Amino acid sequence: MAAPAHPATPPAPAPDLAALRALLDGEHAAIRDLCRTWLSDPANAPRPDLPMQEHRAQVLAWAEELADAGQTARGFPRAYGGEGQVGGAIAGFETLAFGDLSLLVKCGVQFGLFGGAVLHLGTRKHHERYLADIAALRLPGCFAMTESGHGSNVQQLATTATYDAATGEFVVATPDDAARKDYIGNAARDGRMAAVFAQLIVGGEERGVHALLVPLRDADGATLPGIRIEDCGAKLGLDGVDNGRIWFDEVRVPRDNLLDRYASVDEDGVYTSPIASSTKRFFTMLGTLIQGRVSVCGASISATKVALAIAVRHAESRRQFGPPGAPEVVLMDYRTHQRRLLPALAKVYALHFAQEDLVARLHHVFTSDAELDREKRELETLAAGLKAVATWHATATIQECREACGGMGYLKGNRFAALKADTDVFTTFEGDNTVLLQLAAKNLLTDFRDQLGELDPLGTAGFYAKQGFETVAERSAMREVLTRLADDLLPGRDDQADLTSRDVQLELLRWRADHVKSGVARRLKGGIDAGREPFDVLIDCQDHLIAAARAYVDCVVLEAFAAKIGQCADPGSRALLDRVCDLYALSTIEADRGWFQEHGRLSSTRSKAVIKAVNTLCGALRPHATALVEAFGVPEASLGDAAAVAEAKA
Amino acid sequence: MAAPAHPATPPAPAPDLAALRALLDGEHAAIRDLCRTWLSDPANAPRPDLPMQEHRAQVLAWAEELADAGQTARGFPRAYGGEGQVGGAIAGFETLAFGDLSLLVKCGVQFGLFGGAVLHLGTRKHHERYLADIAALRLPGCFAMTESGHGSNVQQLATTATYDAATGEFVVATPDDAARKDYIGNAARDGRMAAVFAQLIVGGEERGVHALLVPLRDADGATLPGIRIEDCGAKLGLDGVDNGRIWFDEVRVPRDNLLDRYASVDEDGVYTSPIASSTKRFFTMLGTLIQGRVSVCGASISATKVALAIAVRHAESRRQFGPPGAPEVVLMDYRTHQRRLLPALAKVYALHFAQEDLVARLHHVFTSDAELDREKRELETLAAGLKAVATWHATATIQECREACGGMGYLKGNRFAALKADTDVFTTFEGDNTVLLQLAAKNLLTDFRDQLGELDPLGTAGFYAKQGFETVAERSAMREVLTRLADDLLPGRDDQADLTSRDVQLELLRWRADHVKSGVARRLKGGIDAGREPFDVLIDCQDHLIAAARAYVDCVVLEAFAAKIGQCADPGSRALLDRVCDLYALSTIEADRGWFQEHGRLSSTRSKAVIKAVNTLCGALRPHATALVEAFGVPEASLGDAAAVAEAKA
Repeated sequence: MAAPAHPATPPAPAPDLAALRALLDGEHAAIRDLCRTWLSDPANAPRPDLPMQEHRAQVLAWAEELADAGQTARGFPRAYGGEGQVGGAIAGFETLAFGDLSLLVKCGVQFGLFGGAVLHLGTRKHHERYLADIAALRLPGCFAMTESGHGSNVQQLATTATYDAATGEFVVATPDDAARKDYIGNAARDGRMAAVFAQLIVGGEERGVHALLVPLRDADGATLPGIRIEDCGAKLGLDGVDNGRIWFDEVRVPRDNLLDRYASVDEDGVYTSPIASSTKRFFTMLGTLIQGRVSVCGASISATKVALAIAVRHAESRRQFGPPGAPEVVLMDYRTHQRRLLPALAKVYALHFAQEDLVARLHHVFTSDAELDREKRELETLAAGLKAVATWHATATIQECREACGGMGYLKGNRFAALKADTDVFTTFEGDNTVLLQLAAKNLLTDFRDQLGELDPLGTAGFYAKQGFETVAERSAMREVLTRLADDLLPGRDDQADLTSRDVQLELLRWRADHVKSGVARRLKGGIDAGREPFDVLIDCQDHLIAAARAYVDCVVLEAFAAKIGQCADPGSRALLDRVCDLYALSTIEADRGWFQEHGRLSSTRSKAVIKAVNTLCGALRPHATALVEAFGVPEASLGDAAAVAEAKA
Repeated sequence: MAAPAHPATPPAPAPDLAALRALLDGEHAAIRDLCRTWLSDPANAPRPDLPMQEHRAQVLAWAEELADAGQTARGFPRAYGGEGQVGGAIAGFETLAFGDLSLLVKCGVQFGLFGGAVLHLGTRKHHERYLADIAALRLPGCFAMTESGHGSNVQQLATTATYDAATGEFVVATPDDAARKDYIGNAARDGRMAAVFAQLIVGGEERGVHALLVPLRDADGATLPGIRIEDCGAKLGLDGVDNGRIWFDEVRVPRDNLLDRYASVDEDGVYTSPIASSTKRFFTMLGTLIQGRVSVCGASISATKVALAIAVRHAESRRQFGPPGAPEVVLMDYRTHQRRLLPALAKVYALHFAQEDLVARLHHVFTSDAELDREKRELETLAAGLKAVATWHATATIQECREACGGMGYLKGNRFAALKADTDVFTTFEGDNTVLLQLAAKNLLTDFRDQLGELDPLGTAGFYAKQGFETVAERSAMREVLTRLADDLLPGRDDQADLTSRDVQLELLRWRADHVKSGVARRLKGGIDAGREPFDVLIDCQDHLIAAARAYVDCVVLEAFAAKIGQCADPGSRALLDRVCDLYALSTIEADRGWFQEHGRLSSTRSKAVIKAVNTLCGALRPHATALVEAFGVPEASLGDAAAVAEAKA
């Protein structure tokens, strides 16, 4: 049970918890602490006992309190009650995610989606008219994009907004039930206005999906004429959010209500847009969704931290079984338990740092005046991929933590009920994960095409030759045969030492990312060259595309983590993070060791050594499990009853 | 997108749905249909809208109705209101699991656990006094084993039952809060009596854990003197079950209340038992838990069927994206969607047949008068292993199905909320899965020791020599090198044809099960021979033990499935099941292809061929997805709103 020391490194100084927390909190530490203070007030702790309607009322009251305190609209320009602080806004949002997730999503809808649509798709007149009221929650609003019949495929939305030049108005209509707006947050109870996404029709011509502002309720909360709203009712989770369905019966709104940053219609019904291509215009508008994805990604990481903090505390106090005649052993001492919790914990660290990078890129793109087309595409790719990976990690880890807490984890007071139910939808909203990974993969292939295009004929030939070589090497398996003979027949080559070399880890993940990407590119090209329907070829390659996106994300996450360690001033924390990073890298490689062997990148002996190295690292990190979760700074009030029970028993 | 035909087989006749259903329903089809009829009554459909207290009342009313109809105690002897039908009882229980799972668990507690304790641990006097009342639900009872401080480690329970010879009574006491009975179903509201597991103390001597009957409430429902009961309150799921905590303050019960099948105390306080070893006695008593595990296993398979039935129906009606200018494509046509649902569906078929086998073994052991020690141990091993694998499969598949239904799957009316929340605890109750897999592995090693013991010296040597050869062969990797060279350099050896040979599949899974088992046996023996503490050695090998149990279960499940196909009279269904079985086998091998390569059982080329074969099979089974889930016979009323929505759109 003793934790073996890290093979080739001298004993490191003890990590300094404050330094570790400071590194994690990063530049927005003050905002995070402000948010922690608010969450630590018992009046703001999650309330699993509240029935739905009371929960909704409580969530609105909390959101108003936060808005009054200026904590919810940091991303808005200073002129309209904000701080022009995209990064700070997300840091606050991430921290708020330690608490009641209905409150988080309510704020996300109001300030992120609705406010974001007005800010990013609207122009000065909209900003002046609405932003301050949105920031102060005097104008609660909705982001009405999804329809019952059209979720991921936004381009096919069926709601229409037809310009009537005679009156200078848009007529918004829901043609059938499949086109009703569905699952719309803030719609069932509180929303006064909605940013509605509809097919714009001007002078009889269809112009594609655009957003416009449509009032829903009057100042007294009564639904306006032509608007029909239905409550979605109870959901699997997030019961404090009032999701609803909206139908528009020829609702007329003034021409000015079109959010006209990327397209406008003049009095006479002439449509103009600074973006000539309608496809490009559409994707530019959708770009505003990126902030939502980045926010959900950060929130899922925070929720995972809460679950791990509870589970580690439980594992350090709960005793079961043990050697005959001796006291029972705490769960954390069991290898099975370490295996359940510690690789997941390492991955949360890795995701945390990758998210920090992502937020920095977002802040840069959204606050810069330059065009930054390439940066925008990279941002979109990473946001889509990381959101998918982080939210699935949340689902899996929260479940694992619940089970690791046994019967106690099943009681409603212990946060797992809420964490499970509330985060569940993260995998399918703000973009379904499976769709997002394909989006990310397609972006990666665009990069790839650029790369090919930039090469001169000689370079191109060399590029293909290299690809060809890899393939031949793989098929003939000769390289692996040689590696295996060297690895397996020479003494002393099955040690774990170089597996903890960051360069070796990075090389393995980078090679996989490149290889999967070029493999799927070849398959797509081959299928299309052979004259097959592109859509059929795409479907054949779907799982390959998803593998490409995942491999890319794993690689970027490791790079982000590795880069961050060097920035830590405290040598003890640095040494600890180094091992956490090893555990992330090696458990990621372990999970796909079938692939690495198939492609001659791990011999069977090396593959087994990866498993052993993960076990060794679990043992080495086990004494630091508590420090690692305490560094997250989850407020006690967010840990629920399980924490109290564990404390009482400790 | 066209489904490629199964390589080397001629086109099979279309499957006959009725024949497939009949095969699945097996010998207890009539009982299953009776239960389906009951579930199809709208009054008996799940009610996601009910608040906790109303839900509890509804569940009790339903259970009483079922008891009146004689549907709940088929496992009891005929003399006491039952049918002596262990297999039939479980078939009914499995079918009931299509509906409200709180009702299921309530019935499981009353008729399975409480009734089972009286039946299996008690003697004639208990049967005569209580069984008929238990069967009719006139005597609602509890199974009070788990304590706050002692869940899995039952041997360390701290509640005491001390015999007082002066009065001829047992004094039941809760020494501290860690010893309070916890999470006890039926305790908070309805239970009148409990089978209490306590350390028996007779004449000052500790005799280990025994069960005795302790009245909890009087006929009016008032708690009796000395009993304190607290409501566990709201839980993550199963809110219709009234779980509670119980403390005993020196509660006196007559000597006759000891369930004395395996140990009795006479008037003068002399303790006798037909089983000399106290350890063996303890495990014999715990043997009564097996039926609970088998029941939970079956219930988890049924819940998984419900989720898949909803998700497949949704996937066949929901359209998203498609080729330009053409109608959108149904989700089921996407490879990613097939990959999400079809291997999980194949596994449910496999688990269904394995469960059928398990129930037959249970019925045999529990209704036979013979000793059947070996059969009992095998039963315990399989029940523990299959329960763990099936309940984890339920958790993973229900989650996957929820996500595959997008936003619609998140609405509370659509059963996923309940399926997720209610089945969640299946992985940790009736034995925590991680503990159960270790129990199964230890049993397997006992078999292994027997096998070693039975070999003559020459045989033993031969056995070890064989083991030694495998190890050397593996380390030198020469065999794999040769396989790879043969596979990879010769033309035409990377086809998928022989992967669909059942013998090849069975051989791969059997070899893995044997190899992992003997590997962990060697490690355990090596560690102990080297003088290390056995407990430490065990902890080092924990993940290896769990791998051994999983490999064993995978193998037994494939064997059960393969054996069943031949019994199907309809050629079309047989051909279909053959492919479903291929998909189960190959997706199981695919999931552990890292291991198969590490151990030289799959070359890299063959490993890739496994992935391709799984894709091919997904395509081949795709047209049959609806038939495969309809064969489960899940009543419409159990499918919730999602089914209705899908129908409306279709």
